[in-house]
Amino acid sequence: MSPVNNNVQINTDEHPPKFKVTIVGSGNWGSVASKLIASNTIKLSSFHDEVKMWVFEEILPSGEKLTDVINQTNENVKYLPGIKLGCNVVADPDLENAVRDANMLVFVTPHQFMEGICKRLVGKIRDDAQAISLIKGMEVKKEGPCMISTLISQQLGVNCCVLMGANIANEIAVEKFSEATVGYRGNREIAEKWVQLFSTPYFAVSACQDVEGVELCGTLKNIVAIAAGFVDGLDMGNNTKAAIMRIGLREMKALSKLLFSSVKDSTFFESCGVADLITTCLGGRNRKCAEAFAKNGGKRSFDDLEAEMLQGQKLQGVSTAKEVYEVLKHKGWLEMFPLFTTVHEICTRPPSPNRHC
Amino acid sequence: MSPVNNNVQINTDEHPPKFKVTIVGSGNWGSVASKLIASNTIKLSSFHDEVKMWVFEEILPSGEKLTDVINQTNENVKYLPGIKLGCNVVADPDLENAVRDANMLVFVTPHQFMEGICKRLVGKIRDDAQAISLIKGMEVKKEGPCMISTLISQQLGVNCCVLMGANIANEIAVEKFSEATVGYRGNREIAEKWVQLFSTPYFAVSACQDVEGVELCGTLKNIVAIAAGFVDGLDMGNNTKAAIMRIGLREMKALSKLLFSSVKDSTFFESCGVADLITTCLGGRNRKCAEAFAKNGGKRSFDDLEAEMLQGQKLQGVSTAKEVYEVLKHKGWLEMFPLFTTVHEICTRPPSPNRHC
Repeated sequence: MSPVNNNVQINTDEHPPKFKVTIVGSGNWGSVASKLIASNTIKLSSFHDEVKMWVFEEILPSGEKLTDVINQTNENVKYLPGIKLGCNVVADPDLENAVRDANMLVFVTPHQFMEGICKRLVGKIRDDAQAISLIKGMEVKKEGPCMISTLISQQLGVNCCVLMGANIANEIAVEKFSEATVGYRGNREIAEKWVQLFSTPYFAVSACQDVEGVELCGTLKNIVAIAAGFVDGLDMGNNTKAAIMRIGLREMKALSKLLFSSVKDSTFFESCGVADLITTCLGGRNRKCAEAFAKNGGKRSFDDLEAEMLQGQKLQGVSTAKEVYEVLKHKGWLEMFPLFTTVHEICTRPPSPNRHC
Repeated sequence: MSPVNNNVQINTDEHPPKFKVTIVGSGNWGSVASKLIASNTIKLSSFHDEVKMWVFEEILPSGEKLTDVINQTNENVKYLPGIKLGCNVVADPDLENAVRDANMLVFVTPHQFMEGICKRLVGKIRDDAQAISLIKGMEVKKEGPCMISTLISQQLGVNCCVLMGANIANEIAVEKFSEATVGYRGNREIAEKWVQLFSTPYFAVSACQDVEGVELCGTLKNIVAIAAGFVDGLDMGNNTKAAIMRIGLREMKALSKLLFSSVKDSTFFESCGVADLITTCLGGRNRKCAEAFAKNGGKRSFDDLEAEMLQGQKLQGVSTAKEVYEVLKHKGWLEMFPLFTTVHEICTRPPSPNRHC
């Protein structure tokens, strides 16, 4: 069994309360996050060593339960094979049990599951819980877009930061140097606590007081990555790719500022902004599928390509483009955002046998 | 002979004076610039059709003069083979003759030649001449850095704009879509004239009132490209590359603002800023040589690699890193710019047989 520390903490000035972390989600990025976090909680005295990770239970081809295999091997054999998560990570298939004792909740699931997860967690978390979202995407409702951090805050009555950045999970898993940005609303002290929880020598995290700007970067860049993939698939060259990325960054900034007047220009110079855009447009899955889409002249749908190329992972750019398109249309802003609009239009055109993207 | 128009213009309200363009320089980028410009002067009534291009005369292996071949074939067979420049481009090996009638001077030579060229041109250009520099680099003197546009302005007593952007010349030569930024000091009307002269359906130019910011972007990004090449050569992955590019962009912005308080943050969102950085770090020659340098574990010098890989073109990043290093050292700013400083230090370390970059 893991060397976990479940001692009750005595809350005196000499012994301030320890923070207890639970990760809600255990996909590729969630597993890497658990590795980062577990390497810190075991070293830093202000955190409990044990990190709980809620795992959506699956039965593996071997007949074993995924959680059992993670707890026996310290490895998420399905979503992050070959990487040790740390012996202090404990997989738990029971969502309510996983969050019960935690006062630092890390949300990292596909964004479409968050509304359901929040509903299940109402009244089940600690009063002093803090949350952070690593989720890219937003829920679009009739009344407009709702950021995932807002959904979490509103549904669970907690303060919710976000962590975004140039973070291809498999590269961080093998400890290649990366940066990330924590976006926070008002409480700098909590932001610093999250920075401490995630930072390692190969993962440099900084804090930025602009939660909406940071979160929108993480969401909107996936649309730009689709456009960058088209450029790659059509062999349009580096100048065009850079131009598309620049125009994309400009639309990201413009839309973020229209949606939230508090968004700062400087956020787009952080890892969550220009760096994440670069990483995603160089190597991410949205770019890759869009490249294949363009190479096939739009004759194969994104659903098809996603099923073939992503082994069960979800392509966020296409759905984000659709959601953003709805917002732009509802607000009468379509013409102000030609790149976002065109990406959605290309993604949803019916296939034509004679078309070259 | 080219369909040139040498009629003297009558300056009345109905016939405003025509602008006459000379390009000083005829390398790869200069030749592409002449193609862009010539396609516009022949169409727009406010410009003389003929575009003169000063060519540093060379004798080709065939025994012919380069200028003769350009004028006979409309092609710069040495620096832009396979591309027609336009029949209204006239190559001239005589610098003074080439500039004599021009009131729009486009400077596009390697930056180390500009001081000599300016000296030769003093008193030889028209009183109403306007200049633009497409040259990346700066002259560093004891008293500090001197931008090329400043050198031109001061030596020749002319107003000098700059044009920079995500512009790999060979891609623009084959009409792949690109953007560029004209940086200007005060006169918006002249800036618009330059925009008009360069813009084509595949070359989108916009103006930005920040000549120093635009020019420094074009210069400093070459240092970042060297760092990006190291990342590629060492197979450090996309997250690291994005992080290095972001840190590089931050140092570009910080140094520009320290050198010129007028520099605007918004300039770095233009094509000359983030987009040029991206193009240069994806495909440029500085990146390519730095990748080879790192792959060779620093055992072959940049001079060697440049001679082998660039067919007579010059590697600007290494010399710019050296010049910037001198400025940083002189001002006591080395510690504020770890990326710029480290690039210079790596470039100038003596080769060691056992080193891995």
